[in-house]
Amino acid sequence: MMNQSAFSVVEGGSITSPRGFGAGGLHCGLKKTDRYDLGAIFCEVPAVAAGVYTRNLFQAAPLKVTRSSIAVEGKLRAMVVNSGNANACTGQQGEEDAFRMRSVAAEAFGLPEHYVGVTSTGVIGELLPMDKVVSGLRRLPAKVSGQGAEDFCQAILTTDLVRKMLCVQLEVDGRTVYIAGAAKGSGMIHPNMATMLGFLTTDANIEQGVLQKLLNEVTDATFNMITVDGDTSTNDMLVAMASGLAEHAPIAPGHPDWEKFAAAFRHVAEHLAKMIARDGEGATKLIEVNVFGAVSDEAAKSIAKTVIGSSLVKSAAFGADANWGRIIAAVGRAGQPVNTDTVDIFVGDIQVLRQSRPVPFDEDEALEYLRGESVRFDIHLHMGEANATAWGCDLTYEYVRINAAYRT
Amino acid sequence: MMNQSAFSVVEGGSITSPRGFGAGGLHCGLKKTDRYDLGAIFCEVPAVAAGVYTRNLFQAAPLKVTRSSIAVEGKLRAMVVNSGNANACTGQQGEEDAFRMRSVAAEAFGLPEHYVGVTSTGVIGELLPMDKVVSGLRRLPAKVSGQGAEDFCQAILTTDLVRKMLCVQLEVDGRTVYIAGAAKGSGMIHPNMATMLGFLTTDANIEQGVLQKLLNEVTDATFNMITVDGDTSTNDMLVAMASGLAEHAPIAPGHPDWEKFAAAFRHVAEHLAKMIARDGEGATKLIEVNVFGAVSDEAAKSIAKTVIGSSLVKSAAFGADANWGRIIAAVGRAGQPVNTDTVDIFVGDIQVLRQSRPVPFDEDEALEYLRGESVRFDIHLHMGEANATAWGCDLTYEYVRINAAYRT
Repeated sequence: MMNQSAFSVVEGGSITSPRGFGAGGLHCGLKKTDRYDLGAIFCEVPAVAAGVYTRNLFQAAPLKVTRSSIAVEGKLRAMVVNSGNANACTGQQGEEDAFRMRSVAAEAFGLPEHYVGVTSTGVIGELLPMDKVVSGLRRLPAKVSGQGAEDFCQAILTTDLVRKMLCVQLEVDGRTVYIAGAAKGSGMIHPNMATMLGFLTTDANIEQGVLQKLLNEVTDATFNMITVDGDTSTNDMLVAMASGLAEHAPIAPGHPDWEKFAAAFRHVAEHLAKMIARDGEGATKLIEVNVFGAVSDEAAKSIAKTVIGSSLVKSAAFGADANWGRIIAAVGRAGQPVNTDTVDIFVGDIQVLRQSRPVPFDEDEALEYLRGESVRFDIHLHMGEANATAWGCDLTYEYVRINAAYRT
Repeated sequence: MMNQSAFSVVEGGSITSPRGFGAGGLHCGLKKTDRYDLGAIFCEVPAVAAGVYTRNLFQAAPLKVTRSSIAVEGKLRAMVVNSGNANACTGQQGEEDAFRMRSVAAEAFGLPEHYVGVTSTGVIGELLPMDKVVSGLRRLPAKVSGQGAEDFCQAILTTDLVRKMLCVQLEVDGRTVYIAGAAKGSGMIHPNMATMLGFLTTDANIEQGVLQKLLNEVTDATFNMITVDGDTSTNDMLVAMASGLAEHAPIAPGHPDWEKFAAAFRHVAEHLAKMIARDGEGATKLIEVNVFGAVSDEAAKSIAKTVIGSSLVKSAAFGADANWGRIIAAVGRAGQPVNTDTVDIFVGDIQVLRQSRPVPFDEDEALEYLRGESVRFDIHLHMGEANATAWGCDLTYEYVRINAAYRT
């Protein structure tokens, strides 16, 4: 998909590797244990900022705050996050609380309010305990540093099992540029819902409109192509911040290094998206579905997402069952054009369907492959030139256990 | 929803209660055990026939056969069904086999070919063992009688746990009319997929166009409003046959008894649809979702189906968790107009959300209610006049176990 040699992963890199960024976290009392539940990413200079937000009609209050901050100048200096309480379905009071989080954070960091974004994840329908949040926000600036990325990642976790972070580097105009990201999300969780949150930092010099367009395109191909359970949180948000401190000429389409910059940016987003899918509630494996030869990008994406979202495909993957019948049934109900005589399906490298007819295959080989931690289904439609990839996870007993648990 | 006194359930009634119909079943060798796997509904006279078929693009061969039979005169005298093999994804040979099933059955029953419909359910991607099928079809007429409905129901089952049948009676022009139905389906099943099959018989006198239109409307409100796992089989089919032997004046919109006839017809379909949902793979309970006050029928249906299809709502129901956050999140992602400030949600009769804000409720009372075998979620949008109801089942460990099982 991309030229890997054009950029490289920074071992030990983090969201504070790009020049100008610090991060940190602390425990303010929203989580019952002493795990961190409040964090911030901070930039020494106003960073060019872009955001994408949940498409759920019930958008939580913090999304409105972040949106309105970015709307002023297209720049942010701090993103403040709490976990443990989503501040969603909390009405007028919730909105006032979210704006108050912004003003308290702005004061604590010594910033104009519109340089601060806010995001929340956790229980919905409960008001934030603002005394705890305010006290925590006032202590937050002292925790922010170039070494605070791990603390920040802990502060955004809910039921996630693993921290999700990546940093890559590349050359732009002969200058080293870093692009990094952190994310959380593992389905919609106890007691009400979880959220996918993503934060991308870079020291690239890039205009706001270019960054927003790149973020939209990359989100469509990465975060919008994963599914754990088909549900969409009220709080999903992805924010990118670019400090410009790499000090190259502004990068945009047409710049000789644009393609590799976009590929590196996408790589970070894709890596985080796949980590979220792999860490889906109860998941034992990552599933990748590739659709080739569709009539349009929309058709390719829709078919890939229908297959990855099928409970039957997901439970077959859990059972290591090369059940191509479920895959083709999902292809056929995606509502997209499909020639029912020309479909090839591969489980990993094992062909199981040719021109829509079963191909004898070695069941033991397929079983062995499907028992792995990462499995791939390739679907060739032989109709056009459009391709798409979607990622998800298997459906397991553990998923049911997690989500059937009575709220306590 | 309907005037119950306008019709009544016939205790012990079956698909052979309507005048003119017989049914039967036998074991021809498609199932490994000695359970019945071949059956037929037979009518003494050419019955006005209407059909609805899966929207999956991969339609199994038998659907083509039934469609082409009905296309000739709009009448059928026999519907032949096998279980154990779906004859889907079987290419040209599968199509020839399905047409051969029709011709052999026509010969055995002494009928013109176009009076015979064919349907199949079971494994996909395997050719029918035609020697067994042909031999079975030749023995089938001797098994068909007014007492064969239970045998027929056994012959159409796959992993279904219970037989699904109902008969109601009503008066049309002072004549007693019977409407009956039988169905199968419990999700998409081992080893590849299952199917929803439905058969409605009546002795009403009704024109083909009227019957087809009624069947379409009723299907949209009943069978198309249930979901077990969101997957659509390649073989789904619902066929209605009307013998006319009740000998009243043709019934159609405008006839004084039309409304009660349509209500009775719908009641049979709804009852069977709910039985399918309740018997969903691994299900412990039936879930009913009612949406009130939507801006359009399409919006009401789409929202009801999004909620009933949510894995999170389904697993919360399994856990008896009054998790309204998952319900409202599903409402918000249905892609339909919703006023995010005016939503009320009830769990049974317990209000949990008013004007999109949480209402304190008795958790023990909700837990007690949700532990029942049938639960209802009511969603009031307060936007328009359109309502819809959808049915489904909970998501359980048993669902995962059934669908993760390696094909053996």
